[in-house]
This record gives sequence, structure tokens and C-alpha cells, in this order.
Amino acid sequence: MLPVITISREFGSGGHSIAEAVAKRLDIPFYDGEIVTRAAVESGYAKELIEEQGEAATSANKWFDISAASAMYFQSPQDEIFLAQRKVILDCAKKGPCVVVGRCSDYILKNAEIPALNVLIHADMEHRQARVLERYGEIKNVDIKKRIIKKDKQRRTYYRYYTDQRWGEYRNYDISLDSGTLGEEMCVNLICELAKTWLPEG
Amino acid sequence: MLPVITISREFGSGGHSIAEAVAKRLDIPFYDGEIVTRAAVESGYAKELIEEQGEAATSANKWFDISAASAMYFQSPQDEIFLAQRKVILDCAKKGPCVVVGRCSDYILKNAEIPALNVLIHADMEHRQARVLERYGEIKNVDIKKRIIKKDKQRRTYYRYYTDQRWGEYRNYDISLDSGTLGEEMCVNLICELAKTWLPEG
Repeated sequence: MLPVITISREFGSGGHSIAEAVAKRLDIPFYDGEIVTRAAVESGYAKELIEEQGEAATSANKWFDISAASAMYFQSPQDEIFLAQRKVILDCAKKGPCVVVGRCSDYILKNAEIPALNVLIHADMEHRQARVLERYGEIKNVDIKKRIIKKDKQRRTYYRYYTDQRWGEYRNYDISLDSGTLGEEMCVNLICELAKTWLPEG
Repeated sequence: MLPVITISREFGSGGHSIAEAVAKRLDIPFYDGEIVTRAAVESGYAKELIEEQGEAATSANKWFDISAASAMYFQSPQDEIFLAQRKVILDCAKKGPCVVVGRCSDYILKNAEIPALNVLIHADMEHRQARVLERYGEIKNVDIKKRIIKKDKQRRTYYRYYTDQRWGEYRNYDISLDSGTLGEEMCVNLICELAKTWLPEG
């Protein structure tokens, strides 16, 4: 049986496309934007808010600055969004083999003792800049490199906050791939080959 | 053409065996112990000393404690061993496709602008303990877990000292594999598949 696959990715690394291609080739469900839609229903928050804050510590979510002590006394909207997404991710994984993108899914599944093949996709700045430019085009007054660095920081802070782990720590992944040097197609091939023979007990 | 492959590995992860199997299957030279032998000739130091100190910051090499300022004024035996190993690694890589294990080889080749496929092999403590026990057997008065933790620390300190980089940082590897969850055979398969199609320009 195919596994549940989580794909963590750096912004601009092509991780989303790779995840989508893996799901398509293995013919299993793909969850990225759909997590947002379902979490909106779960939580009552707007899709746009979840999209913006459901994976990133942004300047809009000031609660990342508050102390742990005061955090004990209330549940922030950010926490509610995290919990709604968590529930959706667990529901999806329990249904069977699938590909889930980001949102601390590796941590969430491990914590729930649901076996998963955990993948990390990364690339160097040069490849990521080229990819973002190709995908979104030139945006007036937007420095692509600065945008990538900011996205990295937001995702890292979010991940650190909810998992108490360092994002990108090699121990948390079964396989980590540099999509810049290997190319997206090779990443898809390797993940699919692995998924077909992988057994959770190692 | 096949690439030069560097394999960095955690102690007890089976990285050495995986590297050897990859070299055998691809029919290219394998350099691990041979680096020690050749570096001994290069440097004039005994093989045993290089084996002990050529990859690890141990209590015997006190110079890891001295300040950067005083380090500027003399070259320690450790530095001489590093430079001898560096020369051997560069010589091997320049000859053509091969597999080189550890010794900062990823960093050394990148710095010399020699393209290489950089691989990291890691595993969780449980798998590593089982592997070390299987390979070396029970050793009286030796706590395997403590030995693994110490080896990790020594290699990390050595790597940090000579490369000014964090060991195990995902950005430094084209592919990182968990040999504990994936199994050694699968690691060999994935590396060989990658090596056959990999092009240094990505």
C-alpha cells in the first residue's frame, strides 16, 4: 500500500508542483489549498485569513510575540486556525494514502502516530529566484530575494512555534532533496520510487 | 558520465557500507580508508594518528580549544593532517568519478569548484544503536549510545572548525536519506539512480 506523504518545502523550491506531480503519478489525493478550504469550514475563519496566516508567522499575527506565560490563558485566532488545519490534516491522512503539503504536517502526523513518508524540498537562492520570477513574473517594487527571505522566516517561525522544532532539521525527514541541482522531474521520480516500496517500519 | 559522489554520514547510520555498495554497483573507485593511507604518506604522520584525528575533534587534539588569534601563528598537527587529507581528496576527485566518504569532502570539493553529488546519510538513535551492536558486538564497559553521541560531537566539531558550517545543514546536500526508515538497500538504489542521470548544472 502507498504511504501518506508529507512534503515540506522552501518557498520557490517547486515543492508544491513536485507534490502535485507525485500525487498525480501515484493516483492518490493531493492536499494543499483544500486544507485551507476545509479549515475555513472547521474554524469559521475566512479562507483568505487562513491562506495568509495558516502557515506563516506574519506581522499581522502579533501573538507570536507574546510570552508563553500569557499564551497559556487564551487561544489566539492563530491557534484556532492551527487546530482546524491539524484536524483536517489528520482526517485526510486517516482516509488513506495521500500527499499533504506543509503546515507542520510531518510533526502533526508523527505526534498522532500516523506513519508517513516525510519529504523536504529545498533549493538555493538562485534557483528559487528564477523559479519565482518564472511563476509570478516581475512584480513592480517587489524585490524577489527579499520576499523569499521573508517567507522563509515566517514559515520557520510558525513551524518553531507549533512544533518546538527547528524547521529543515534533517532528522525530521526520510528524504531531503535539492530541487535546484536535481531538477523537479528527478525529485518526482525519486519520491515515487520510494513511495512504492516504502514500509513504515523501515 | 558518472559524478564524484561525497557521502557524509552519522556514526552507526551505515553510511560507509552504503557508500561502498554504491561504488561497487557503479563500478567506480571508493575512498575511505585509502584516504588515511595516502594522507599518511603525504603528511608523514602515522596512519593510526590520522585514523583517530583525521575526522574528529578528540580530547587528544587540544588545539580545538585555542583561540582563533593564536591559531593564526602556527599550524597544528591537526591542520597538517587536514591539509594532507584535503590534497588526497582533491587528487582522487580530479581523476574522475568516485565515491568519497566524510572528512569534509563536500566542502573541500565545493571550495575547489569541483562538481560533486553530495549525499547525507543519517538515522535515528535506535537504528544506529542496533547497527553498531550488530557490527561491533557488545563491548564491555562501553555504553553504545554514549559512544554514538560522542562520535557525533567530535565529527561536528571537526566539520565546524574546518568548514565554518553547521554539519548536517540540509542546504549542503543534494540528497539526504534516513537509512533507518528507508533501509540501506533503498538508499543504495536511490543514490545510484540519481548518479546515473545527474548533471552538475542541475
